[in-house]
Amino acid sequence: MDKKKIAEWLAQGSVAVPKLLLNHYKYLGLSEGEFVLLLHMHSFIEDGVLFPTPAELAEKMTAAPSECMEMLRRLLQKGFIVIEEHTDEKGIRSEKYSLQPLWEKLVQYLYTEWAKEERQDQQEEEE
Amino acid sequence: MDKKKIAEWLAQGSVAVPKLLLNHYKYLGLSEGEFVLLLHMHSFIEDGVLFPTPAELAEKMTAAPSECMEMLRRLLQKGFIVIEEHTDEKGIRSEKYSLQPLWEKLVQYLYTEWAKEERQDQQEEEE
Amino acid sequence: MDKKKIAEWLAQGSVAVPKLLLNHYKYLGLSEGEFVLLLHMHSFIEDGVLFPTPAELAEKMTAAPSECMEMLRRLLQKGFIVIEEHTDEKGIRSEKYSLQPLWEKLVQYLYTEWAKEERQDQQEEEE
Amino acid sequence: MDKKKIAEWLAQGSVAVPKLLLNHYKYLGLSEGEFVLLLHMHSFIEDGVLFPTPAELAEKMTAAPSECMEMLRRLLQKGFIVIEEHTDEKGIRSEKYSLQPLWEKLVQYLYTEWAKEERQDQQEEEE
Repeated sequence: MDKKKIAEWLAQGSVAVPKLLLNHYKYLGLSEGEFVLLLHMHSFIEDGVLFPTPAELAEKMTAAPSECMEMLRRLLQKGFIVIEEHTDEKGIRSEKYSLQPLWEKLVQYLYTEWAKEERQDQQEEEE
Repeated sequence: MDKKKIAEWLAQGSVAVPKLLLNHYKYLGLSEGEFVLLLHMHSFIEDGVLFPTPAELAEKMTAAPSECMEMLRRLLQKGFIVIEEHTDEKGIRSEKYSLQPLWEKLVQYLYTEWAKEERQDQQEEEE
Repeated sequence: MDKKKIAEWLAQGSVAVPKLLLNHYKYLGLSEGEFVLLLHMHSFIEDGVLFPTPAELAEKMTAAPSECMEMLRRLLQKGFIVIEEHTDEKGIRSEKYSLQPLWEKLVQYLYTEWAKEERQDQQEEEE
Repeated sequence: MDKKKIAEWLAQGSVAVPKLLLNHYKYLGLSEGEFVLLLHMHSFIEDGVLFPTPAELAEKMTAAPSECMEMLRRLLQKGFIVIEEHTDEKGIRSEKYSLQPLWEKLVQYLYTEWAKEERQDQQEEEE
């Protein structure tokens, strides 16, 4: 097998999925399909494709473009992603997805869990 | 919010998902649910849990333990994972999952695709 | 080249280095050599080697074991790592390194920077 | 501490460093400083900065811009990186760094090591 080709494979790199997200996406209300769609979106954005279409997502998923469209609609509606206006250095306007709300939901969830634990610890001390 | 707690969150780290796998799991015959189960399994193994149970997997997935059991059975049967005998330094035997077959399937797929491209390039040159 | 071998290479995985750490290690007082030693330590721990020796670290670095020992001493003294007592399920005690203080230092640094920015923003508003 | 801020920190993500590279950079002839410079370069490229200057690199490293310039020169000369001409969709030409030669050197090294092992195994069988 060609060494150049193997080098190209290695060069493609990895998407780093925080264990905090892997371990808690379910508790944020995400299904496995939605979670994987978000991974693909993250990977597209990292590669410079800031507004992947349902068709582009469907090419990598076992879902049809219409199902990806439906998932996107649901993720937007439930507030996991937002569409932002983006103006490049030449002043050309375009749209892009941002995953920032996903991270805010995750931090909110972690904080609530942590506050619960703290309260329990305090109650146990008082008893 | 507590700085110690935030440090603990950061310390949990990430699972690095090769883009080669993210972009091609579908073509290997994996569904999104199976792909995510393999991510969880990888994460468990990295944390020292070498043989996660269906119940442990189900705790992190939107699937019931019985569904996780069924997925595990299917992944074993289709040859994405294997169960290996593992003997620790004290001679105690236990079982562990290995994802090695998954990587072999991925390389086999990439190789076949690459050979196809090579043949096409050659044909185009000959024409 | 052997496909099994290439699969083994892919299977080795990656260490995910948070960009927060990559971008700020210098401001925490770490040199490039110390930063890389911490990456190696993280990688060893992930692979189940909880207390890598200076010789094991030196095998992967351009530094001699004595230099690695010196770096370890300095990282312990400056409070980036700690040695913890670790008792396994059979009650056998051993030592292990923890990088938890590194993450606490990073959060403390980020927090201080953030508080500075907040103050500047406030002052600008008041003027 | 502000939850929005913590979410921004989490959102910054990680650079995935293949263990193959972490474990063998030394044997490719790279120092820890050069290895970290390559990590920074990879991170810059991922964030859309395709041709980071010595000054931009120096801001994140304990080295002065002149030292980063010297390291870049050495990495180019030893063939770990190359400068490529890049033309964007508007036809504007610019330069960018490519790490492709690094991965080819790594594969070449792994292949040579593997061939050595194979030969040793064969000799042992013959004896």
